[in-house]
Amino acid sequence: MVPNQNSSADFAADAARVILGRLYAPIRSELAQVETMYRAELSSDDPFIANLLEYIEDYSGKKLRPALLLLAARACGRITHDHIVLGTVAEMLHTATLVHDDILDDALLRRKRASINKLAGNEVSVLLGDHIFSHAFEISLHCTTPDGAREFSRAMARTCFGEIMQVHNRNNYELNEARYLQIIECKTAELYATSAMLGAHYAGADEKTSRAFYDYGMNLGRAFQIMDDLLDLLGEEALVGKTLGSDVEKGKPTLPLIHHLEMANAEARADALQAAASGNRKALLERLHATGSFKYAAGKAAAYVEAAKQGLRVLPQGEMRELLNDVADFVLSREL
Amino acid sequence: MVPNQNSSADFAADAARVILGRLYAPIRSELAQVETMYRAELSSDDPFIANLLEYIEDYSGKKLRPALLLLAARACGRITHDHIVLGTVAEMLHTATLVHDDILDDALLRRKRASINKLAGNEVSVLLGDHIFSHAFEISLHCTTPDGAREFSRAMARTCFGEIMQVHNRNNYELNEARYLQIIECKTAELYATSAMLGAHYAGADEKTSRAFYDYGMNLGRAFQIMDDLLDLLGEEALVGKTLGSDVEKGKPTLPLIHHLEMANAEARADALQAAASGNRKALLERLHATGSFKYAAGKAAAYVEAAKQGLRVLPQGEMRELLNDVADFVLSREL
Repeated sequence: MVPNQNSSADFAADAARVILGRLYAPIRSELAQVETMYRAELSSDDPFIANLLEYIEDYSGKKLRPALLLLAARACGRITHDHIVLGTVAEMLHTATLVHDDILDDALLRRKRASINKLAGNEVSVLLGDHIFSHAFEISLHCTTPDGAREFSRAMARTCFGEIMQVHNRNNYELNEARYLQIIECKTAELYATSAMLGAHYAGADEKTSRAFYDYGMNLGRAFQIMDDLLDLLGEEALVGKTLGSDVEKGKPTLPLIHHLEMANAEARADALQAAASGNRKALLERLHATGSFKYAAGKAAAYVEAAKQGLRVLPQGEMRELLNDVADFVLSREL
Repeated sequence: MVPNQNSSADFAADAARVILGRLYAPIRSELAQVETMYRAELSSDDPFIANLLEYIEDYSGKKLRPALLLLAARACGRITHDHIVLGTVAEMLHTATLVHDDILDDALLRRKRASINKLAGNEVSVLLGDHIFSHAFEISLHCTTPDGAREFSRAMARTCFGEIMQVHNRNNYELNEARYLQIIECKTAELYATSAMLGAHYAGADEKTSRAFYDYGMNLGRAFQIMDDLLDLLGEEALVGKTLGSDVEKGKPTLPLIHHLEMANAEARADALQAAASGNRKALLERLHATGSFKYAAGKAAAYVEAAKQGLRVLPQGEMRELLNDVADFVLSREL
């Protein structure tokens, strides 16, 4: 235990808030509208449900998905009411997946508070997630065209596919990098990509530009998940406010370990798997460092961030393109 | 154990098949199209997911929801491709709720086979249900108008609300009949009502007729759930192919018990609750019989069936109206 763990965590959180404050500046009032609509839609006349939904509101964190959607809209044209609706939908869908993820992970904490499954039980969590999913789809149809509803439902089906694949590959230490990438593209990046694409599309962007924003979100999502998996191995619980280091315990091979196992000879491979199986974190981390596997994973994340930026060259040079580049860079700063 | 339990169960199932064969005759080829689309949509290129989805296909039983949708369409006009899509959606949404229900109930059996949660674990079941939900919403947008998608997402949000209320009222023996009704309207009847309504609406029915079909489905759904709850108390496992008698064990008060508790004096009330708590099924059933509580519940179901038929008077007299009356009566025949 590090005595000033909390203050260092607070410092990191404060730093992130400052950066995000700057990045979100061009969409501040619209993001506030999303926030208002999100709170209004996550409410109920029934006091029991209202109470659960109020608790869940705190699951909403950096609002990266609605922010991407709104920033893409700002970069391509005018932000409309459709964007507010779809930003709300993106955040609700993300919230619903978190509610269900907590059941899967048997998580105790979420954003430093008891997770909803610990508070209200698995049954209520399954149903509450379903309720939020259904309601999100319902309000996605309040837009002037059904494109957003169609794209988000397609994205969610793919997200679930990725999550199922992840569970299916638990304890599969033969998992290669290509398959790992496919999983994170589905389970994480798809919702980023779709959010960014819809932001552009509903601002009147042409097909090519909308597609570029899809790719931008996809690359951002890949980088984000690789960093998230790195943090899970390296990080400390207080820094991110959820139960950590769980990937190894749960037999979930992520990029650093996959890289290490690909680099290692039979003996070293057996040693690493032994360290993972026995929960000898320190020994495992030393091995991964020795093969440069953390550096390798961080390098991959940086390459995806670079690809995200390259893709944005379809936009005219200017303030919004710069800002979207900075948003991409922010994903790497989570290494903090 | 009754030695010829299986053959009596088979007899009941055969009898139901014969009746449904007649009731579904006017929509036979369209229901086959729904079946084909359902199987096609519940498939995957990934062998692991394909295997799970194939297993889940068997969750589809009497196909009452798509049948209601198609029969309403036939009664109001022409059956279109939209109806095939929405019939498929109705069955997929129902399947998704069954997948999640099995987690909630910790069910061991579903249609006489191991339930998916027993086969693949709770995690995969949560995600598979989510995948089917999302995919159902996705294909609902293949219709010529977004009305079906909007109504089904609204209905699903209400369904989940009802299920949450049900969990919340576990072991609440103060639950009154009005609240019980509200729960079953949400968790069961809403999807029937919406299916019937959309069948009429997409066949070109006017607002009033579509509304009448909504009410018809709502009354049918109320009757269906009341009968289902009766069967849970009275039935035998082999007769319905799922783990039974679970309502009492799970502290879920249903209409016969609610009626009995309302009729009983303090002492009789305490005795009944004691019988329920100790799992003394025989004593409990005797008490419920003594206050006529099963008859009361069956009478309520019959009254809703009658209301369903009355509401159909907006249709011209004729073959289809007769048939829809028979469909309503079929719900009561489950008492078999």
